[in-house]
Amino acid sequence: MTNMKDVAREANVSLGTVSNYLNEKKVRPDVEERIKEAIKDLHYVRNNAARDLRTNGSKYVVFVLPTVWTPYFSELTYWVQKGLDEFGYKAILCLSENQYDQEKGFVDMAEEQRVAGIISVSYSNLTSHVHSKIPLVSIEKEDTGLFPLVSSDNYSGGEIAAEEFEKRGVTKYLFIGADHISSKAMTARKSGFVDYCNRHGLNYLLDRVPSSHHEEEFDEKLSSIVQRIVDDKSDYGNLGIFAYTDEVALKLYEKFLKKDIKIPDDIQIIGFDGWKLSKDQHIDISSIRQPIKDIAMMAVKELDNQVKEDGSDDVPRIMLPVSFFQGETTKLI
Amino acid sequence: MTNMKDVAREANVSLGTVSNYLNEKKVRPDVEERIKEAIKDLHYVRNNAARDLRTNGSKYVVFVLPTVWTPYFSELTYWVQKGLDEFGYKAILCLSENQYDQEKGFVDMAEEQRVAGIISVSYSNLTSHVHSKIPLVSIEKEDTGLFPLVSSDNYSGGEIAAEEFEKRGVTKYLFIGADHISSKAMTARKSGFVDYCNRHGLNYLLDRVPSSHHEEEFDEKLSSIVQRIVDDKSDYGNLGIFAYTDEVALKLYEKFLKKDIKIPDDIQIIGFDGWKLSKDQHIDISSIRQPIKDIAMMAVKELDNQVKEDGSDDVPRIMLPVSFFQGETTKLI
Repeated sequence: MTNMKDVAREANVSLGTVSNYLNEKKVRPDVEERIKEAIKDLHYVRNNAARDLRTNGSKYVVFVLPTVWTPYFSELTYWVQKGLDEFGYKAILCLSENQYDQEKGFVDMAEEQRVAGIISVSYSNLTSHVHSKIPLVSIEKEDTGLFPLVSSDNYSGGEIAAEEFEKRGVTKYLFIGADHISSKAMTARKSGFVDYCNRHGLNYLLDRVPSSHHEEEFDEKLSSIVQRIVDDKSDYGNLGIFAYTDEVALKLYEKFLKKDIKIPDDIQIIGFDGWKLSKDQHIDISSIRQPIKDIAMMAVKELDNQVKEDGSDDVPRIMLPVSFFQGETTKLI
Repeated sequence: MTNMKDVAREANVSLGTVSNYLNEKKVRPDVEERIKEAIKDLHYVRNNAARDLRTNGSKYVVFVLPTVWTPYFSELTYWVQKGLDEFGYKAILCLSENQYDQEKGFVDMAEEQRVAGIISVSYSNLTSHVHSKIPLVSIEKEDTGLFPLVSSDNYSGGEIAAEEFEKRGVTKYLFIGADHISSKAMTARKSGFVDYCNRHGLNYLLDRVPSSHHEEEFDEKLSSIVQRIVDDKSDYGNLGIFAYTDEVALKLYEKFLKKDIKIPDDIQIIGFDGWKLSKDQHIDISSIRQPIKDIAMMAVKELDNQVKEDGSDDVPRIMLPVSFFQGETTKLI
């Protein structure tokens, strides 16, 4: 690539003169003209990586997350990137597929490259691996208590799901969770639902499905739950199913429709996350919607605070409210 | 952040000795021990950004694309990141929302930061703005002819859609395109469909909808198309609709279902893209599937070739085959 020396040679001036010009120091008008022309002819582009290093102001933020290929994570990535952009940062995207080794590698890379900071969504104990004073904000989970955490209120999400069912005449409550609880957020959703039912004397059942990564087992188990309900029929009109993710809720919805069950007349379903396929397109599932934009913006703001207030001991734990989205799987009231 | 000077002070050795140790030159064993301990105590992390600069080997690749928040772009981003990772690069994610100014800004940034290269998905004339010799690979569109292009075969996608309808007894063919054709790829889909119909003496119609960014107008126009077909009824059993994206196909499917039209018995629908909600989850639409993984991997491979063969004049134009995905909106044959 063209460097300053090439420009100096082309303009027939010294390297120091080119440097003065680039650093906006005074240069003779005719010399300035020659340098400008040389820069244009050679398509010279200034090396800002070097300048950033000297001024100690990297503008890169490493964003670690499991994947970008689900509606939830693609929306989150969209807003994190927008937020970083507003604050003048650039996102380096690091997908971990929930592999701790990958996550560690990203953190090491971030430290070695002296990036401005890290935003992470990790379901392992990633933050316990971070020793340096690099600014870091965690989304959804942070167990060391040493780094800021931005999450949404999963517990009250569970409560809201039960409450919305109650308003819609549900008398039998079913929670479908995961075989392996992968995060406290998931547990909190269930606890909120169960606690609401207990407090209000409501009749509830719990069921579990394997992770959707095990596609066949997942599908089999979900089909058997649907078949049980269809065979029984006694729950028609009374049953509300709260699924721990929109993915599970959507699959349930499809399976019931294929069995000619009327949704939401016979059975009502609420998911969790509030997936949108894209900025303009909701899916049909009623759901507890996470405030994804707010989570992203808050994480960026906290990170920027940390970058600017180097050495602050403040470790905020921010919990943002969730809300109910009325889709087509719960009755209109 | 801790620097080499801190380590030297802590270990009570000179800066040069620390430098020698870090660059794997010979150091006295007891001195080595002291430096190791100092590094551990101070959580010293080496500054690789500086080293990368000296060795002229940035490992960052700027990935410019309109958004990450649609199933198509989130899958593409997933695979591009995977591919870059395999080749030892890191992706800097730059979302343009189709704004040319944003795209130009990203390219300028990439040049200034001396990144390894750029992968871009741009529907404007972005590549005409790129003057420097920075390695760049374009996905889907590249009009200057100066940079490698990786795309999928949109034209034969249109042909395949018509052919699959023909196999399934369709006698009336409807193409739904966009009000404003935003890319040659979209035009090619239509041309392939129309050419196939003409070659085979098939009866076809063309219709258009506004971009889904104009949510209300889009929805209104689509509803009126659906209503027209429902009122007429004469096309039941004969009609095949090829929508220019899965987004349009999905909306059509939902609208027909709500009118109690039987899909695929009464009407068959084929979309374009082959959206998946996540790695494990297809949507129900029959569709012409783009080979997203192959597109991503090929783009990364071409970029790596360019980085390594600095100054090569080869400008490959790679067109990858598309395929038909049998969902629930076309008859089983």
